[in-house]
Amino acid sequence: MPLNFTLHAHDGLARRGTLSTAHGDIRTPAFMPVGTAATVKGLTPEMVADTGADVLLGNTYHLMLRPTAERVQRLGGLHQFMQWHKPILTDSGGFQVMSLGDLRKISEHGVEFKSHIDGSKHMLTPERATEIQYMLDSNITMVLDECTAYPATYAQAQSSMERSMRWAQRCKDAFIARDGYGLFGIQQGSMYRDLRAASSECLQSIGFDGYAIGGLAVGEGQEVMFGVLDDAVGMLPTERPRYLMGVGKPLDIIGAVMRGVDMFDCVIPTRSGRFGRAYTSYGEINILNARFADDDQPLDAAVSGRASQFSRAYLHHLFKAKEMLGPILLSWHNVAFYQQMMHEIRHSIEQGTFHEVVARYQMAYI
Amino acid sequence: MPLNFTLHAHDGLARRGTLSTAHGDIRTPAFMPVGTAATVKGLTPEMVADTGADVLLGNTYHLMLRPTAERVQRLGGLHQFMQWHKPILTDSGGFQVMSLGDLRKISEHGVEFKSHIDGSKHMLTPERATEIQYMLDSNITMVLDECTAYPATYAQAQSSMERSMRWAQRCKDAFIARDGYGLFGIQQGSMYRDLRAASSECLQSIGFDGYAIGGLAVGEGQEVMFGVLDDAVGMLPTERPRYLMGVGKPLDIIGAVMRGVDMFDCVIPTRSGRFGRAYTSYGEINILNARFADDDQPLDAAVSGRASQFSRAYLHHLFKAKEMLGPILLSWHNVAFYQQMMHEIRHSIEQGTFHEVVARYQMAYI
Repeated sequence: MPLNFTLHAHDGLARRGTLSTAHGDIRTPAFMPVGTAATVKGLTPEMVADTGADVLLGNTYHLMLRPTAERVQRLGGLHQFMQWHKPILTDSGGFQVMSLGDLRKISEHGVEFKSHIDGSKHMLTPERATEIQYMLDSNITMVLDECTAYPATYAQAQSSMERSMRWAQRCKDAFIARDGYGLFGIQQGSMYRDLRAASSECLQSIGFDGYAIGGLAVGEGQEVMFGVLDDAVGMLPTERPRYLMGVGKPLDIIGAVMRGVDMFDCVIPTRSGRFGRAYTSYGEINILNARFADDDQPLDAAVSGRASQFSRAYLHHLFKAKEMLGPILLSWHNVAFYQQMMHEIRHSIEQGTFHEVVARYQMAYI
Repeated sequence: MPLNFTLHAHDGLARRGTLSTAHGDIRTPAFMPVGTAATVKGLTPEMVADTGADVLLGNTYHLMLRPTAERVQRLGGLHQFMQWHKPILTDSGGFQVMSLGDLRKISEHGVEFKSHIDGSKHMLTPERATEIQYMLDSNITMVLDECTAYPATYAQAQSSMERSMRWAQRCKDAFIARDGYGLFGIQQGSMYRDLRAASSECLQSIGFDGYAIGGLAVGEGQEVMFGVLDDAVGMLPTERPRYLMGVGKPLDIIGAVMRGVDMFDCVIPTRSGRFGRAYTSYGEINILNARFADDDQPLDAAVSGRASQFSRAYLHHLFKAKEMLGPILLSWHNVAFYQQMMHEIRHSIEQGTFHEVVARYQMAYI
């Protein structure tokens, strides 16, 4: 088995599992900090590991352009390059390429696009996306898919989903199996239940090591997303990990875990941190708010981890003075907050007390 | 005695000592990383401590404007505020204020200036500079002086030095003595030997816990600076620490240690690091240089410390991609490189082999 996945406990639909890779175990439900260009912005690998993160996400689009997959491979792979020795999942590059607008052209063969860095032309096909992720030495390769625009008509959603399924088969054909490495398929179908069902069936007939739910977190809002998840998660095989791509805020994650999702990634903790927004046990705050100028309390005493122990007044000062250490510490805190939330979620599923965690975060975040 | 200073060894004029403060010992010769606005740019206090730094420098000018000395005092002092629990030396704010040009007006009373942040009016007098540093809880307070412009005529240098000496007396009168805290005087006199001698005599008749050499590293060049040091250092009392302000590059420091200087500060390691320049055991490099793109060697295997172990190719990539982690790691490395150099200097003075360290750094840096 390329990637072993074991389920240890359930609480309602919420699942507590372990996904084993060549670079170690991923405890699920898991949140993956995003390391776009071979770095989680502003954090050393040790700072990231210190938060308890088991796995990072790397972006194929950014890495294929700079430093290039060929260079990363020559330098020993992404783990060695960025000195992160735990598991890595890479996306396929599709999502970023699709969002290039006029700079890209989609055909059945793949996506032709111009680099945002130097305007050079590139071709991303299912085969090439799979090869790049192999060269990066990614533990979890994602299939290239067409992330359906939102909103989409039924006909648009169907045709887009069917192309994604043909591409999924081509990725599977191109994927080189190794112990501790795996390939995930991505369910599409926009907001249409029967298209999601058809997509899931198609993916399962191809056979993948895990199944992602794509085409969400694209502006549809939490209520619509949860509505889709209510149907879509159950269509996926129970014995394989389920990954909701690009999600999300704390209550998005908690709501999705409640519906049976195992894996998440999002730039929110680091992006928010760079702009002075902190996720805390007492809600979301903007550290630039004047009320923090003289507040000598730690940022969040309920979060273990170094960054969370600096005073709100100090962090406020760093942001007012535009000091690099402000974004560094707030990114670090936010990633630690997310990982602590995932830890609490995992522990509560084991204990059968997940509803208590749900209630606590709803209190802080509604 | 407010600050105990012990000399353990000599090698030529070079001295190996310990300066003891309320927040711990400073091993001399010592290099102080600059923490302008209550942060060494881009580094957590633990990262700075990890380099072996015993003491930081804080800037009175920046801190008095933001977050203000009153706020830092309310929040428990600068050590507590920035969570740096080892010694801190603060400058007097004079150097920054003098360089404000049209925004400042100097009189015998002090310097009136407008904030570069919001244009608000402030007055910095010898008494106020001393009070601010007290409020910051600085272990080593520097007297307010007039940093004489370079070049200066004899008459300009004399009149400026004499005003600095009157201000030094006013600082001494305003200084509140506490165990483990001290006040340093600053020798002026530009490039004129007899003015430097007069300044030193004046300072010693007032009596300070340490003596700085001011008015250097202002564009005069290394040869002129060493020429002044050849005369000026010997004018200062042997039993007290000697501090060369704002210096410098590796060979500036080594040349000054050779002439009997004990303490240094400079923004070079962090400022250079932010712009991709690294000080290494094999010389100064620009990590953006294309020859590093595929170089899988560690940045500097001769420097212990985490940052120095990342590959040149990875650091090159981070700078090309304008990732925050590039400036962070290169600043961290440079501070570690400086501290390792100071460690080697101190050890070699104890062993009577300082000339070997001099020769090694001259090889790498000439």
